[in-house]
This record gives sequence, C-alpha cells and structure tokens, in this order.
Amino acid sequence: MYTRFDLEGRKVAPEMLTDSIATMTAHQSVRAFLPDPLPAGALDAILTAARSSPTSSNLQAYSVIVVTEPERKARLAELSGRQRFIAEAPVFLVFCADQWRLQYVCDRQGYPMVAQYLDAFVIAVVDAALAAQNAVVAAESLGLGTCYVGSIRNDIAAVCNLLGLPQRVMPVTGLSVGYAAPWARPGLKPRLPARVTVHRERYSTEGLEEALLEYDREMVEHGHYSGRQVSLPGTAPVPESEYGWLEHTARRLTQPEVVAPSASLRAQMRTVLERRGFQFD
Amino acid sequence: MYTRFDLEGRKVAPEMLTDSIATMTAHQSVRAFLPDPLPAGALDAILTAARSSPTSSNLQAYSVIVVTEPERKARLAELSGRQRFIAEAPVFLVFCADQWRLQYVCDRQGYPMVAQYLDAFVIAVVDAALAAQNAVVAAESLGLGTCYVGSIRNDIAAVCNLLGLPQRVMPVTGLSVGYAAPWARPGLKPRLPARVTVHRERYSTEGLEEALLEYDREMVEHGHYSGRQVSLPGTAPVPESEYGWLEHTARRLTQPEVVAPSASLRAQMRTVLERRGFQFD
Repeated sequence: MYTRFDLEGRKVAPEMLTDSIATMTAHQSVRAFLPDPLPAGALDAILTAARSSPTSSNLQAYSVIVVTEPERKARLAELSGRQRFIAEAPVFLVFCADQWRLQYVCDRQGYPMVAQYLDAFVIAVVDAALAAQNAVVAAESLGLGTCYVGSIRNDIAAVCNLLGLPQRVMPVTGLSVGYAAPWARPGLKPRLPARVTVHRERYSTEGLEEALLEYDREMVEHGHYSGRQVSLPGTAPVPESEYGWLEHTARRLTQPEVVAPSASLRAQMRTVLERRGFQFD
Repeated sequence: MYTRFDLEGRKVAPEMLTDSIATMTAHQSVRAFLPDPLPAGALDAILTAARSSPTSSNLQAYSVIVVTEPERKARLAELSGRQRFIAEAPVFLVFCADQWRLQYVCDRQGYPMVAQYLDAFVIAVVDAALAAQNAVVAAESLGLGTCYVGSIRNDIAAVCNLLGLPQRVMPVTGLSVGYAAPWARPGLKPRLPARVTVHRERYSTEGLEEALLEYDREMVEHGHYSGRQVSLPGTAPVPESEYGWLEHTARRLTQPEVVAPSASLRAQMRTVLERRGFQFD
C-alpha cells in the first residue's frame, strides 16, 4: 500500500505501520463512484465504528442520517454545489450536530438547559466530526472510497427541511461512501510539511516562509491546480507554473462565492442557525 | 478483541471486522497512564496519520502542539480541571483550529481575507477534530491508550499564553497518549441505541422514549454513575438505582459549573475568542 510515508520519502518501521495507520496514511478522497451497493454488513460496521467514537461527557450530541433514496441523494447533490458523485454513491451519510436531543432530555427531567453558549456548539460539532472520521476510516479499511461534503452547509435551511431535522440539529458534513470508480484515484495529495502544522511545546513560525514555498512548488509540480485556477474579477490569470497552494488558497478565501455561487449562503449561516434555535452567546 | 459488537450482542462477519474497525469498536478512554515513553517511531506515525486526515478544500486549518515537558503538562493539567492523567501521560497533543496561517497566506498574496464568518470557524474546528480522531485511532492501533481533554477549553486565554498561540488559533481538544495503567481499562461504555443516533432518510423520533429508558437502565446496571452523582443545590439526591444517563446528563447541562468550577469560564468563550481575533458573523 502506497502511504504518506512513501509520498514524503520517509521510512517507517513495519511494526508502526498497523493496518489502521496504513489505511489512514493511504487516504485519498474519491469523487466518482460505481453504482454497486455496499457489501453486506458494511454499513452496519461503518455506523458501529462511528457510534464508538469518543464523545464529550458521553453527551453523544450528534445524529447521522443515512440517505440511500435516489431522489433524496439527487436533491442533496443539487443543494451541495451540484457535485454529481453524491447521487452516484450508493450511500450518503449526513453527520449532524444535535442539541435537540439534549434539550429533550433536560425538558424530560425538568431542568432548564443552561449550557447553550458557543462551547456547547463546539461540543456538538466536534462530536459529529469524530463520528464521521471513524466512518471514513472504517469504510476505507473495507476497500471503499469516501468523500466529505462540507458544501452540505451551503443551504442549511433547505437541507434541514429535506431531512426533517428538528430545531437545533445542524448538518455539519456529508459523506459519500461506495466503491470508487477506477478512474477516481488521483493519488495521495501532498500536505503542508509537518514543521508547518506540528509544533513542539509552543507554536512556532520558524522556517514557515521556506516551508510554504516548498509546499507551493510541490503542489505546482503535482499539477493539482492545473486547469482549476480561481479567476477573480479584475485580477489577471497567473501562469500555471506560479499558481500553487498559496495563490489558490488566498483567492478562495478572498472571494469564496467565486468558487461556488451557493457558498455565499454560508456567510449567513449564523442567522439561519439562530433561527433554528442555536445560540452563540 | 472485545468490541462494541460483542457488548451489544450482535454478530459481525469476520471480513467486516478489519483491524481498523476492531480498533475503533474496542475504543475506551484511558484516564491513568504509566510513565513509560512511547515506543520509537510511534509519535511520528500518529502525527502522520493526523496529517493525512481529510481537510476542507485542503485548507489544513489546524495545528497540533506536541507537549512533553513535565512542567508544561502539569500546568495544562491544572488549567484543564486538574486531571492528573494529563501530567502522567508522556505525550499531550493539543489540536487547534488555526485561522492565523490562512490570514498569513492572504496577507502574503495581497488579498483581504473575507471568509471569516461562522462557517470558517466550523471548518477550522472540524479540521482539528478530524486530525485528532486519526491520532486516536493510530495510537490505539499501536496498543496505546488515549483520552480527549475538552476541558482544555476551560481557560482558553491561559492555554493560548502557555502554548504561544497567535491570534486566531484556538485549542479545540487536548489528547493524552501513552501506555494505559493496567487498572485504567474500565471496559467499553454503552452508547445510545443505534435507533436513537442513526436515522434512515429523515430524522425520526419514533421509539425515542423507550430507547432512552432502555439506555438509562443499561447505564445504571453498568454502574457508570455509581458515586458520581451531580449534586445540585436545592435538589435532593436520587437513589443510585434511578440515577442514569438521563438525570446525569440533564444535571450537567443545567449547571455545568457544578461539575467543574472552571467550566464556568466556557460560558465566556465567545468573548475570549473575539478578543483573540475570531469572528462569528
């Protein structure tokens, strides 16, 4: 199995390359799927792994919606930036932050629910993310492909409506699961050098500039942004040889709506969520 | 290996129980560690798994701080509700949501960073959580124990100071990693029945009340809250046989500061984060 250790030209002792670590370091997102259903028992295994994830104070402040109906998947694909693979894959999981159930428990036991500040939102979002990542590792360990769909948050109100989510349940990420189409394995994507994202004892920016330039060159050579340049109104195109992670990332962050028109809705997320009962005090 | 399938009395086909799925469904948090260092190469393998996690639009909006200095771990233990195991374990990882680096990239390329609304915060928190969960699975696949420390968010300003975090970098979760003390394996914790947290096509509350009562009884029988009753001022203690997940959860959510006095700081998280440059528009 070709892993990130290979991609980065690093040796790893065989006893460190457990099946789990091999699976995770060989991860690549898959954006084209065969129509074949999952093997028998796979969905249950994936969901059991998700349900086994750690959760803050055992609150289990998340829910998963398993979507397999073709029309519903097609509608979710439309709402998520028209990404066709969402409809292609046999299963689409929607991992939600769920404060509704906790409110139900407080009401039932006769206590006002006080913990409704920003931290409670973080707890629910993190619980959903941890469950989702276990699902990813489980699916990939079974030879299946996955792709997260953050654009499930483009139009939260419409997604809540389609999935019947009650007040205070928010879709955090979608996850397509299925057999990868053979042409859907572009290879591992290089990541920022470890010295950029990993710090010893204290946050450090030593050597940051050199490391970013090294990564930028690597991404250009890797051809990752070839033909995918974000064009900003009033800004000239950049030669492909100079368009790497730095310029692509900055352009996305300066005009998110150029990349995906529906993404402009994300700027209104807080208003939508407050209307749906979330509090961010 | 005893897994959640066993705990729930369910059969699983051997080909579904990959090493990864076995590792994840055997997860239990460990709150006492031996002082032994990690085996050679383990930290690198764990961090490479973390760096291989999926990330929204390849933004990699997270950072990890690796803490091994005894004094720093001891101080972090104090700041996180005095949980002794944080100082015990040889390694404490702090997974942070990192918008600072993205601002640096925008400044460097000469664009204003527009994407600063609530969704950008969610992206960074989720990136940090996905990396953290890969680290958990990697560590546990190597036979190590782990425990998340959400109380790293009790006093964010002090933690930022201790770890030298720049503006717009927020600790999301701590993670202790080390060899579990032999007495630190309490067994798998039951989770809410799948029909509560997993929904088909649309959110459903059918059978919720019965399922919650079933879980409540299971947690009482499991003895999970034995001697751990949250006492609320003005509320009488409940017999142990009636104190389960429902009452414990409701009490925590109605008076979070009774459980952990420092947790009252969490109610001020938004103010602290805004002072540190985060925006939640």
